[in-house]
Amino acid sequence: MLSIDQQLEHLRRGTEQIEPAGELRKKLEKSQATGKPLRVKYGIDPTGIDVHLGHTVPLRKLRLFQELGHQAVLIIGNYTALVGDPSGRDQSRARLTEEQVEKNAIDYLKQVAKVIDIQKAEVRRNGEWFSKFSFLDVLSLTSKTTIQRMLERDDFTKRFRAEPSVPIYMHECLYPLMQGHDSVEIHADIELGGSEQLFNLMMGRRLQEIDGQEPQICMTMPILRGLDGNRRMGKSLGNYVGIGEPANEQFGKTMSIPDSLLKEWFELLTDRPAAEIEALISSHPMAAKKTLGKDIVSFYHGAEAAEAAQKEWENRFSKGQDPAEIPEAIVATTDLFEGKINIAKLVAVCGLAKSNSEARQKVTEGAVNVGADRTKITDPKQMIVPEDGMIIRLGSRGIRRLKVQ
Amino acid sequence: MLSIDQQLEHLRRGTEQIEPAGELRKKLEKSQATGKPLRVKYGIDPTGIDVHLGHTVPLRKLRLFQELGHQAVLIIGNYTALVGDPSGRDQSRARLTEEQVEKNAIDYLKQVAKVIDIQKAEVRRNGEWFSKFSFLDVLSLTSKTTIQRMLERDDFTKRFRAEPSVPIYMHECLYPLMQGHDSVEIHADIELGGSEQLFNLMMGRRLQEIDGQEPQICMTMPILRGLDGNRRMGKSLGNYVGIGEPANEQFGKTMSIPDSLLKEWFELLTDRPAAEIEALISSHPMAAKKTLGKDIVSFYHGAEAAEAAQKEWENRFSKGQDPAEIPEAIVATTDLFEGKINIAKLVAVCGLAKSNSEARQKVTEGAVNVGADRTKITDPKQMIVPEDGMIIRLGSRGIRRLKVQ
Repeated sequence: MLSIDQQLEHLRRGTEQIEPAGELRKKLEKSQATGKPLRVKYGIDPTGIDVHLGHTVPLRKLRLFQELGHQAVLIIGNYTALVGDPSGRDQSRARLTEEQVEKNAIDYLKQVAKVIDIQKAEVRRNGEWFSKFSFLDVLSLTSKTTIQRMLERDDFTKRFRAEPSVPIYMHECLYPLMQGHDSVEIHADIELGGSEQLFNLMMGRRLQEIDGQEPQICMTMPILRGLDGNRRMGKSLGNYVGIGEPANEQFGKTMSIPDSLLKEWFELLTDRPAAEIEALISSHPMAAKKTLGKDIVSFYHGAEAAEAAQKEWENRFSKGQDPAEIPEAIVATTDLFEGKINIAKLVAVCGLAKSNSEARQKVTEGAVNVGADRTKITDPKQMIVPEDGMIIRLGSRGIRRLKVQ
Repeated sequence: MLSIDQQLEHLRRGTEQIEPAGELRKKLEKSQATGKPLRVKYGIDPTGIDVHLGHTVPLRKLRLFQELGHQAVLIIGNYTALVGDPSGRDQSRARLTEEQVEKNAIDYLKQVAKVIDIQKAEVRRNGEWFSKFSFLDVLSLTSKTTIQRMLERDDFTKRFRAEPSVPIYMHECLYPLMQGHDSVEIHADIELGGSEQLFNLMMGRRLQEIDGQEPQICMTMPILRGLDGNRRMGKSLGNYVGIGEPANEQFGKTMSIPDSLLKEWFELLTDRPAAEIEALISSHPMAAKKTLGKDIVSFYHGAEAAEAAQKEWENRFSKGQDPAEIPEAIVATTDLFEGKINIAKLVAVCGLAKSNSEARQKVTEGAVNVGADRTKITDPKQMIVPEDGMIIRLGSRGIRRLKVQ
């Protein structure tokens, strides 16, 4: 069994904030002394989530707590998910039926089982308590905080101070209270969340204190940046790696991240110690990236699949790098219709095929791809907007750089 | 039947604000055209109210609507009364049981029946709808307004802007929404309230609009000042006239108000036309005050009782006015113990009795009173703090003005 100091070292790795910082050691010591595992809470709203690597950052911390012998408590916000966005402004939060919410919950749990030990986790749906709340209970809950306190939440502060101010709907202030009350119901010792969750986690702390409980410790994780190296990983931004994606996809996507993300991804998505990460990155970024890709794929598909994914990627890309010199092909604007041209005609115009019919055949065979991301095009009728510098490839050797004039 | 113009004149008399001003005529016209009475709402929380003249200002307006053929709808906030003050800061809003609340409601209705025609009024308890609210319903209700809008309420604005700011508890923001929702439930055409109620009444308007109803008109009444001529009439301030008080009490208290209140009281508590009020006050304030007293007593006890109350008052007070010249009596500070002296000794010291024992006897007989309000003192041991100018009377003739030195 790890010493408290060792446990703390693991728990602090890749963690943004622990609030209050000093209390985590006390909780761990108490747990060790009493033999009573800590109850570690992590909550999600089952609004239909494709779990991606960004979600796994707190989930991996939850898994770590499990490995240290503590009790993971997953809160499924099935009651809150029923609300949708009551003001109707956020179309993505449409009102779901109970059946849809439960289907989403089951689907979510299936995905999450790839990260944590779902058999050992306690799964609680917050409808269990909130469906029994009367208006009086809501009044009592809301009496436990003030408007002033609510307006301290970062996003609310910004909206309130903007000129003109951006509406903060009253029901939005109820969500942090609901999340906080979940902690009261399950007697959480620790709650995990993304860095933007700190306010909500602290609300849980406060409500537990009012209830006479020992308040939870709030642990926030950094937000993982996506493939673009810039914005947070998200489905709508298309910059994500889904944990359910095939090994080759996961590996290939990981290979496409900028070198600047390497340290962050290693730290948040693997168990490698800091010194090893440092050594890997400083010696050879491409090799480091392959190691990262294999680490990620191994976690979700096993070591063998990771090995195979790397080989497949090297076959497709490492060997298939574009030559240093690429012949130019001129596309006349007179060949375009409303700025577009179909791919088969483009292949012929570039001189990659002797005729339109040969070009059509090659496209149909899947031999043609375009652009930096090598988008394969198999429908000969697909319309393309040719641009200066765009690269078009046929098989492993045919290649042209377009010039539109 | 009165013309719309005549109705408007009556309704506007003694009204502070009609919002929106132009729509009252339209509602009255529509009601006349369709023969459908307007639904006029007035709500109270049955927290144990001794109805006094201050409460009767909006109630008298409700009665006027009844006289004009409209439908009074009394909302008993029996659900909100159950809440008490959830934050526990306001001791006067202790949590009541359902039985207590219902007892208060019945008691309130009995009192109110002295002002409006309770038989013809529609009485609704808001527990009828709020007891069925789920947490989801509350979320939906709260989504209809914003924090920004809430902070426009005068008292909230003040508390928010104070340095340091005074907490605005979240549940306090739910009350205006509840009051507003009452209007949705009962399809109010008009809501009446005190001037501090405008925000809450406007919330009803807004919620009705969201619900697709024709929104209510908000009519606010001025706050009646109490016997002291300064602060709003209130039980806790002891400056009130209860509508359940005996005729003599009501008359006597009315006679004690400063002349500066006459116009306001006539306007808000009687039906006398403005010109007549003007004439009464300008000719002889004392006579005007007697008329006011008789008007008030007549309303609650009938004309005969009013006549009798006036006679009784004249017997007790008009003839018993203090003489223009009052002999001075010196009280030596050496006679005082910690600034006080017992009443019997004071009577003797002033020369109103020949001995302490005679003084004790007079006090016990009830012959002694002190101060501008002629407080009768019957316990000879009662300690008094003598002040310069304080008047002490014995029987109908003995009188002294104290001088402490």
